[in-house]
Amino acid sequence: MSRVGILGGGQLARMMALAGAPLGARFRILDSAADACAGEVAPLTRADFTDLEALGRFAEGVDVVTFDFENVPAESAHWLSKRLPVFPSPHALAVSQDRLAEKNTFVELGIGTPLFAAVSSRAELDAAADAVGLPAVLKTRRLGYDGKGQARLHSRDDLDGAWQALGPGELILESFVPFDAEVSVIAVRSREGQFRAWPLTRNWHADGILSLSLAPWSLGALDAQALAAARRVAERLDYVGTFALELFVCQGRLLANEMAPRVHNSGHWSIEGAVCSQFENHVRAVLGLPLGDTGMRCHSAAMLNWVGQMPDRASALRASDVHWHDYGKEARPLRKLGHATVCAASDAEMIERLCGLGQRLDRAAQCAPLIEALRARLNSPS
Amino acid sequence: MSRVGILGGGQLARMMALAGAPLGARFRILDSAADACAGEVAPLTRADFTDLEALGRFAEGVDVVTFDFENVPAESAHWLSKRLPVFPSPHALAVSQDRLAEKNTFVELGIGTPLFAAVSSRAELDAAADAVGLPAVLKTRRLGYDGKGQARLHSRDDLDGAWQALGPGELILESFVPFDAEVSVIAVRSREGQFRAWPLTRNWHADGILSLSLAPWSLGALDAQALAAARRVAERLDYVGTFALELFVCQGRLLANEMAPRVHNSGHWSIEGAVCSQFENHVRAVLGLPLGDTGMRCHSAAMLNWVGQMPDRASALRASDVHWHDYGKEARPLRKLGHATVCAASDAEMIERLCGLGQRLDRAAQCAPLIEALRARLNSPS
Repeated sequence: MSRVGILGGGQLARMMALAGAPLGARFRILDSAADACAGEVAPLTRADFTDLEALGRFAEGVDVVTFDFENVPAESAHWLSKRLPVFPSPHALAVSQDRLAEKNTFVELGIGTPLFAAVSSRAELDAAADAVGLPAVLKTRRLGYDGKGQARLHSRDDLDGAWQALGPGELILESFVPFDAEVSVIAVRSREGQFRAWPLTRNWHADGILSLSLAPWSLGALDAQALAAARRVAERLDYVGTFALELFVCQGRLLANEMAPRVHNSGHWSIEGAVCSQFENHVRAVLGLPLGDTGMRCHSAAMLNWVGQMPDRASALRASDVHWHDYGKEARPLRKLGHATVCAASDAEMIERLCGLGQRLDRAAQCAPLIEALRARLNSPS
Repeated sequence: MSRVGILGGGQLARMMALAGAPLGARFRILDSAADACAGEVAPLTRADFTDLEALGRFAEGVDVVTFDFENVPAESAHWLSKRLPVFPSPHALAVSQDRLAEKNTFVELGIGTPLFAAVSSRAELDAAADAVGLPAVLKTRRLGYDGKGQARLHSRDDLDGAWQALGPGELILESFVPFDAEVSVIAVRSREGQFRAWPLTRNWHADGILSLSLAPWSLGALDAQALAAARRVAERLDYVGTFALELFVCQGRLLANEMAPRVHNSGHWSIEGAVCSQFENHVRAVLGLPLGDTGMRCHSAAMLNWVGQMPDRASALRASDVHWHDYGKEARPLRKLGHATVCAASDAEMIERLCGLGQRLDRAAQCAPLIEALRARLNSPS
């Protein structure tokens, strides 16, 4: 059994299909957009995720279904799961689609989180602000991504505006965490419960969208804690496939921000940087195959996201060990269009390569936080 | 310009499309077979290579044309080249399609070859046998591959049978070389004349079909000679793209066997074993992009061809650093269906991995020559 249906046809589906084809997997994509970029590398069925008739026909042509998009309606996933294997399960999807259920799961598992409170009315927002404190971030419980569906609250004066922007509806207020670093655990779990994690990845965002990732990024003694948290979440949800657990590092503690039930932007470096990428291992997991090695293939790997506009390809390809990923999408402001992965044999070499690439592509400002962190790591005593 | 048309839709086109998609290239495949395996990863147009009307429509949808198959009729390539860029050029294709023109080119460039003579009649076969000596191999000048279109001549008694099998037509008689090793130079040349070669690869055949490859395989002082020969051939043909030069190592000398004007089976290890694979660099070359680094990404890489039948996938994927490539083709005797690449950090580790994998997949006999060569290398003084 090797025919994999993917709901959602964006870059994640595209990279899944590219990574899975060598395994002998055949992909079929379902998306409502005619220009869904995964459609360039696998046959595309155009339909809405709620169109059960189309879903039924789609399901007949595949052996297993997975997702490039976590906001597929839970009912559609559930409906499909009565007809064929669906990984991750509709239950796992449902929990991670809802920021409140997700945070409650973290709490139940003993995983630290920022303070949070459910908000479903203007009055509850006041109570939540008392409980959580300010500054805080008001978020929709569902359907938020890349900073969308969020409002930052600095003072009591911001409550009305935030409620008007996001309410009424099911919201969550989360304490704003003055974090020292954002990291993610990218991990994968097989149908048989085998669990593997890639080395910890440090991330930098810009305008609420991931801008840079670097792996490995060790937090010393906290590494084991981060991995254990990811494993507990995966086991609780009986999760199958690749997922990301985003964590804040705050005064020496880890606080879970959210879990993404899919391959994740902060794991893109694994295509060239790891022995087996997050995409290949996701496909292996959903097909019931043994998982591949999540170890590094080089000393370190950095991922630079291209958002809104692609830099010049030929300039990038002139650099050493730079791997280009153009998703084939039309340019639009704030849209993720591609990324580049830079591999290096040492931190010093990585700094040199990123400085060169940043300058060459006119992305020096984007690269700066990563270069600064590498310089600090290079100069730190340990 | 990023729309690449490929004539021929086999595994080479498939791996080209998988490697080129991240560069932002969009592929279109032309093949007469409805089940051409590249059609799983890029849109497929069904047509014969001689159907100029279909070729014309195909050409309208792409920016550049290349090949997965060197035996595309030279006239079709020539016809296309009047309409859009075609790489490698029809001239380069034509020379390497003809074993005699190819061997004459080697001779003109001062590259050693086995003795050879043109044969176009039964009488010329006698004369050729006198000139070349026996044992020898009689081959069709065109359209031979994987040992097809060949007959081994051990004594004068074999001449009649060989002529009946292959004649009449344009043939070539080549001296049979008792070689110590077969190696190939996989190299790439850009539109601007930039030339890069991957480390020398040693190859083992079974039943005339490539069975195993190992890179790097240094021949000491001969390495530079092998690379220089490949460069001279590429420059003489004004070649653009990836190609392979197959060489025999015979009593400390290199003898050129043939040149394949395309990505080559003996370069498949470069997908995981090199910083930039033969497939990505071929796409870069035909698109006029800078070439990528052809250096090793690991100590060594071995390629095991799966011919006629695929071994068990799950068993293979349980092994460390084994990379699976199933071309998605229907099993048939002597058909290339897939391959696996094994990477290792030392010869000792490679031996261990190949022994384990060979046993696990019931392919110990296939792996044996490579393991034996590695053991000899490990025990050799240098």
